[in-house]
Amino acid sequence: MDQQVEQVRELLKLHQTGADQQLAQLNIADQARLLAELKPAERQHRFEQLQRPVEVFEYLPLHQQLQLTASLSLEELVTLLDAMHSDDFIDLYKQLPLSVQQQLLGKLSAQSCQVLKVLHAYPEETAGALMSSDYLTLPPELSMNEAIETLRDIAGNHDTLYLIYIVDVQQHLLGVISLRQIIQALPTATIAEVMTKEVIYGTVDEDQEKIARTLAYYDFIALPIVDTSKKLVGIVTYDDAMDIAEAESTEDFQKAGAVSPLDQHSIKTVPILSLYKKRVFWLVLLVFGSLLSSFGIAKYEDIIAEHIVLVFFLPLLVGSGGNAGSQSATLMVRALATGDVQFSDWFRLVGRESLVALCLGLTMACAVSILGYIRGDLMVAVVLAISMTGIVLLGCLIGMSLPFILNKLKLDPASASAPLVTSICDASGVVVYLFVASRLLF
Amino acid sequence: MDQQVEQVRELLKLHQTGADQQLAQLNIADQARLLAELKPAERQHRFEQLQRPVEVFEYLPLHQQLQLTASLSLEELVTLLDAMHSDDFIDLYKQLPLSVQQQLLGKLSAQSCQVLKVLHAYPEETAGALMSSDYLTLPPELSMNEAIETLRDIAGNHDTLYLIYIVDVQQHLLGVISLRQIIQALPTATIAEVMTKEVIYGTVDEDQEKIARTLAYYDFIALPIVDTSKKLVGIVTYDDAMDIAEAESTEDFQKAGAVSPLDQHSIKTVPILSLYKKRVFWLVLLVFGSLLSSFGIAKYEDIIAEHIVLVFFLPLLVGSGGNAGSQSATLMVRALATGDVQFSDWFRLVGRESLVALCLGLTMACAVSILGYIRGDLMVAVVLAISMTGIVLLGCLIGMSLPFILNKLKLDPASASAPLVTSICDASGVVVYLFVASRLLF
Repeated sequence: MDQQVEQVRELLKLHQTGADQQLAQLNIADQARLLAELKPAERQHRFEQLQRPVEVFEYLPLHQQLQLTASLSLEELVTLLDAMHSDDFIDLYKQLPLSVQQQLLGKLSAQSCQVLKVLHAYPEETAGALMSSDYLTLPPELSMNEAIETLRDIAGNHDTLYLIYIVDVQQHLLGVISLRQIIQALPTATIAEVMTKEVIYGTVDEDQEKIARTLAYYDFIALPIVDTSKKLVGIVTYDDAMDIAEAESTEDFQKAGAVSPLDQHSIKTVPILSLYKKRVFWLVLLVFGSLLSSFGIAKYEDIIAEHIVLVFFLPLLVGSGGNAGSQSATLMVRALATGDVQFSDWFRLVGRESLVALCLGLTMACAVSILGYIRGDLMVAVVLAISMTGIVLLGCLIGMSLPFILNKLKLDPASASAPLVTSICDASGVVVYLFVASRLLF
Repeated sequence: MDQQVEQVRELLKLHQTGADQQLAQLNIADQARLLAELKPAERQHRFEQLQRPVEVFEYLPLHQQLQLTASLSLEELVTLLDAMHSDDFIDLYKQLPLSVQQQLLGKLSAQSCQVLKVLHAYPEETAGALMSSDYLTLPPELSMNEAIETLRDIAGNHDTLYLIYIVDVQQHLLGVISLRQIIQALPTATIAEVMTKEVIYGTVDEDQEKIARTLAYYDFIALPIVDTSKKLVGIVTYDDAMDIAEAESTEDFQKAGAVSPLDQHSIKTVPILSLYKKRVFWLVLLVFGSLLSSFGIAKYEDIIAEHIVLVFFLPLLVGSGGNAGSQSATLMVRALATGDVQFSDWFRLVGRESLVALCLGLTMACAVSILGYIRGDLMVAVVLAISMTGIVLLGCLIGMSLPFILNKLKLDPASASAPLVTSICDASGVVVYLFVASRLLF
């Protein structure tokens, strides 16, 4: 099917009028992808010819959605917004100019106004901001046959038809039933008899990352979200959970590389100034780490001047500590992020890490001491072997502990980036190396 | 619900017999999680009391599944395997001792033997090895009412009931219909009229990561997989895609920290020796990177001996280049992994990156030249400013290009780890710094 997308892309490039028909044959996601590649005016033009404009619109990136709305009349905008899924509607609404928001308030459908009331208030990155209110509910007394009939009538534009929630009149969750259960049960059985009563749910104030993790853990198609009074207010679907999981991984990745998260912008379009700001903070902060190394060196300038060969091995020793520390930190950051490791595991892991670090340190010590003997003498070899073992061991312990410490301080363990760990390990490495040298070479 | 899990965990700890009943109330995933925490003998005992043993069994980690099968009679094992989902069955079967596999061959159901024949052959990490053969097919001439009736009869244990594939007698894919479409269409319409004919599919030899990405891109519940002759042979479901996406992110994360991937082991249980091996390779390899720095230093030993103050600033200058390079590499590795950036974008991105790098370099140059003036003199400040700008610029360009080069060499861009980039940037930083110093200070 990639071939087909390619063909339509070519047609669009050539501004062929027949392209609209070909475009309509593609999957909605592909239609949106191709539209997103066009110039704004061209996109506008093609958008007006679409057969299923609302669905395609929802797949476009938010800034392109905004561009497109700018050229719509107020009536057209109202029609579009009323037809959108509630979560996409809210995301777009929040970005509209305040004046437009006010004009809209009197015109939107009662349902959209209700959505605004329920969903608008939740802070970013919480379940409340992520959820959609397009879920289906059924009363518990229906039979399976009646349930299917009712679903036919009410299904409409809802995010999922496959999980239906059973609520009482106050909207408290009583149970959940899947369309699969409805199909497979005896046609005369009632929902109350078939439904799952122990419903697993999230709450509006939970972090979106936790919601995504819960959904993946239970392999659910959707997770119901309740408010503080345990009333059902929304659902989060598996496709949103996948997007969140990817966005959170990207964020952790960027932190691991000492870049403040880019907020889901594409690296190709993020403004230069913004990219500069996200990076300069960490670079300047890390200068202080490097300065620690410098002061370590300053303290031992005499011995360096005496044994200039020591400088030759400085990058090797110090670098190895930083590298080993980065490895430890990376393993811990990811294990904490996926839930493989808890804060309480730290003590137990220190033992394992020390053992691995000792083996690594001794291996590196062998290698470096041979080099030291060739380039220096036996004493240099001994200094290098002892320093290397100590530096690698220390680096690993710093690297594995830093994410836990950040976690304990309620900071994101992912901030224990490779560059940060390297800077700290470098400084401690310089001190260990030159201290050992000063003791053994004088 | 976490509270409920906690209660049952306590009961299990106290070896209460009532615990079995409480356990059965929990979600399958939670039952498996609690069982997984028990000692092998205890787990064995609880497992025999389960009400839905097969489902819980499928959620257990593979090594625990193997432990449990060891105590089953051949008949019990056959019953268990025949009842499992095809993808989980194959994963377990591949781990069984050869002698057991041979004993099983004559006893497994015809359906299981068919699954073995179809799924056993595909290499790890391909769509073929990931897919399940528990999909539903219907003939195109059925009406919606007939479809629902048929689904009731054949639904059984299939992975998903929500997407049904329409195939001809040779199993070629004709279309796909969702249960939602079946419910919402006129009861008398035929499948052929309602189904989506442009089916998006994967092929058995595609990489599992690509499959997971396609699924997430289209927001599908399942993706059909066809063999080389375009016959439908399996499906990959969204829950498997989520697991793959997480595993692949973890792998990229570990690579970014210069650790060879741990193959999905928990960091708490991976054998020490294996952890050592996955790390020592990169540590030793990176020694060569550090040696480059050392030789750079050796070449300029005279000027260092003359101006020992240069050593003081060495960690700062060299470290900043490495940090800036790590940032660039991290951004590119992730952007390549998520598909945000293609190989062909390199040229376009070089311009943006150079601009950002220049701004970053100049900022850092200002900071470091003040320090240089305080600790050295005006000439030292000039040397530092020029070196810093050059080092940061060079570091960024190396960092952003390395992932692309690895990609071009058909290697994983994620291997452009922070430690690797740091090592390379360090070495080039040393040379730039000391070269500039040697020109300006003599």
